[in-house]
Amino acid sequence: MRGRDRLVLKKRVNNMTFVETQYVNFSETLTLKSGAKLSPITVAYETYGALNADKSNAILICHAFTGDANAAFFHKDAKKPGWWDDMIGSGKAFDTDKYFVICPNVLGSCKGTTGPSSIDPKTGKPYGLSFPVITIQDMVSLEKRLVDHLGIKKLLSVAGGSMGGMQSLTWPVMYPDLTHSSIVIAACHRHTAQQIAFDEVGRQAVIADPDWKGGDYYGKAIPKSGLAIARMIGHITYMSEMSMEQKFGRKLVDKEQLGYSFATDFEVQEYLEYRGQSFVDRFDANSYLYLTKAMDYFDLTEGGKKLTDVLQRVTADFLVISFTSDWLYPSHQSQHLVRSLKANDLDVSYVELKSDYGHDAFLVEFDDQTRIVSNYLAKVVKERVERA
Amino acid sequence: MRGRDRLVLKKRVNNMTFVETQYVNFSETLTLKSGAKLSPITVAYETYGALNADKSNAILICHAFTGDANAAFFHKDAKKPGWWDDMIGSGKAFDTDKYFVICPNVLGSCKGTTGPSSIDPKTGKPYGLSFPVITIQDMVSLEKRLVDHLGIKKLLSVAGGSMGGMQSLTWPVMYPDLTHSSIVIAACHRHTAQQIAFDEVGRQAVIADPDWKGGDYYGKAIPKSGLAIARMIGHITYMSEMSMEQKFGRKLVDKEQLGYSFATDFEVQEYLEYRGQSFVDRFDANSYLYLTKAMDYFDLTEGGKKLTDVLQRVTADFLVISFTSDWLYPSHQSQHLVRSLKANDLDVSYVELKSDYGHDAFLVEFDDQTRIVSNYLAKVVKERVERA
Repeated sequence: MRGRDRLVLKKRVNNMTFVETQYVNFSETLTLKSGAKLSPITVAYETYGALNADKSNAILICHAFTGDANAAFFHKDAKKPGWWDDMIGSGKAFDTDKYFVICPNVLGSCKGTTGPSSIDPKTGKPYGLSFPVITIQDMVSLEKRLVDHLGIKKLLSVAGGSMGGMQSLTWPVMYPDLTHSSIVIAACHRHTAQQIAFDEVGRQAVIADPDWKGGDYYGKAIPKSGLAIARMIGHITYMSEMSMEQKFGRKLVDKEQLGYSFATDFEVQEYLEYRGQSFVDRFDANSYLYLTKAMDYFDLTEGGKKLTDVLQRVTADFLVISFTSDWLYPSHQSQHLVRSLKANDLDVSYVELKSDYGHDAFLVEFDDQTRIVSNYLAKVVKERVERA
Repeated sequence: MRGRDRLVLKKRVNNMTFVETQYVNFSETLTLKSGAKLSPITVAYETYGALNADKSNAILICHAFTGDANAAFFHKDAKKPGWWDDMIGSGKAFDTDKYFVICPNVLGSCKGTTGPSSIDPKTGKPYGLSFPVITIQDMVSLEKRLVDHLGIKKLLSVAGGSMGGMQSLTWPVMYPDLTHSSIVIAACHRHTAQQIAFDEVGRQAVIADPDWKGGDYYGKAIPKSGLAIARMIGHITYMSEMSMEQKFGRKLVDKEQLGYSFATDFEVQEYLEYRGQSFVDRFDANSYLYLTKAMDYFDLTEGGKKLTDVLQRVTADFLVISFTSDWLYPSHQSQHLVRSLKANDLDVSYVELKSDYGHDAFLVEFDDQTRIVSNYLAKVVKERVERA
């Protein structure tokens, strides 16, 4: 198998292991939660490791807001490996010696899967704002198509952090029989007012940019400054007060003195500006709008149901992880979820990891996550696959 | 005295009591912390209550970021009273039956005191970005002039919340002999990386607005959308996650359903948009830049000194108040200050008030603040004025 071949290669030559994004086209119409219909749809995805004979070792990795299908390993000529490279690979948390790992780019994104920057076959032009508003549930519906396409009847696990955690939580709710387990990291079962508020300000920053032009900017100047501001806001929420203080404090760009002007004085300003500017080169402004909207719409309780009722059909086991300094998706949200899962007599492991890294912790705290996830997956294999 | 007359009137006819902002012009040059020189300078201020014969009952109130001189009572035809009306008046925390309360508008603002929207006498045009970058210390220097002008040799107290607290903390550091006490509410002795970061994003939103035009927009279209976005970010930081959840949760503007569009779905979006838009009508975009910069520059330790050393010449008593849910100026900052004050053997009262209102608590939690402040002021009078 290609995945296994790559892995052996990786062991031998390490960084010389290259992976490529694959693509699959679905012509069948996808009916969205809104009722809107979408077709055709392309899904970009990558796989690592090898699917075993009984197809019982497949794990779906769901990426966060601005992620992509390249979860691990290097693309040819890339300077950086995939976004969760420390967690996926030989001997890692999602051990590609044991598991077949799949990571698709989500619906509405701009990294190969159909989204607002894709060409609408009806017009021959990019969708822009004529792309339908999508939800986390729609992302999961499309991921299910990919899993079917790969011939997998039941996933060993579905895992993700942040928006990826919302998808991994939604999977066993929408498809109770299609995954043995779910790993929900730094996420929630519904966006709060504060989470919506931060997203709304980011969207307003994009929309206020005159280059946004109602979303019809493809082939013209892109709304750089608005998107950069949105990303700067995001970055503040991804870090903790403490991690910002440790990394930057009041350190000056010019070590000597304050500038007494509106030029950049502090390193933290320079960092945010850099993160904002570099984001503009890699992400589509309309996808920013659609994916934040999908998160804001995310509410498993559908605005009124009890979470315990919503979870009633669920049969999967759960691992829930939160981080002490994550104030964007604070631990109390994970704990609310865990209480509701346990109230339904589900098998739930919950760990609150101590970290100063804020929401970003799921992308940087590998030691604890590796131990916890690898032990958890071994337990799922033992209890739900081998005993079956 | 006018103040006393007004107060009697207030008791009799309540809301029919009107106050007016007064103005004083200083022609003498003010040398700023940057070394820049500024003149002439107008200060807008209000006073409530009466100065006693020995001029020992004067309290200076320092306003927060977007506040003004109208701290209490009504202006004629105004729909709302001053921003701290619940705290200042007959029988209130700052009891105008006992104390002579002064509230000036700060340097750099746009509410009557000289700032970037004022006319530069050298050019006959608004200063715009030619206005010098100012600091909290410069605001305090100018407040000292006003206190001199009013013939007051020593203040009973100087008090304020947020940026007002930074000023009230700076007063006894810059002028150790000129105030008996200082009341520092929801503030800090220096801005952290996170506080700078939020301000920076707000400034970038203003600057990115094409109508800002390098600060030269007076008499033309004002940078509405940029300033509104900056204010929306600010509002999120002034509330707590819990107060946002209690006030808005996921309540929909259209009670029936999600819109599946980029129109406003949630009440929290509508609220932020309203706060952003209404702010644009009452505040100058350049003042937004200058005052946030002054706060970002605020660091009593001057980038390297020990806070205990900086406080060495201080002789005033202190009351420090913080709020449990204030994550913009979190309690640990107040506690750091309190430890350093106590290490200098100063008389410090510290209270951390339980509140869900976040940073806004200093503007809304009146019951506890009234008891604490009024008792504290009585103690200062007894120990520092009557015994003297």
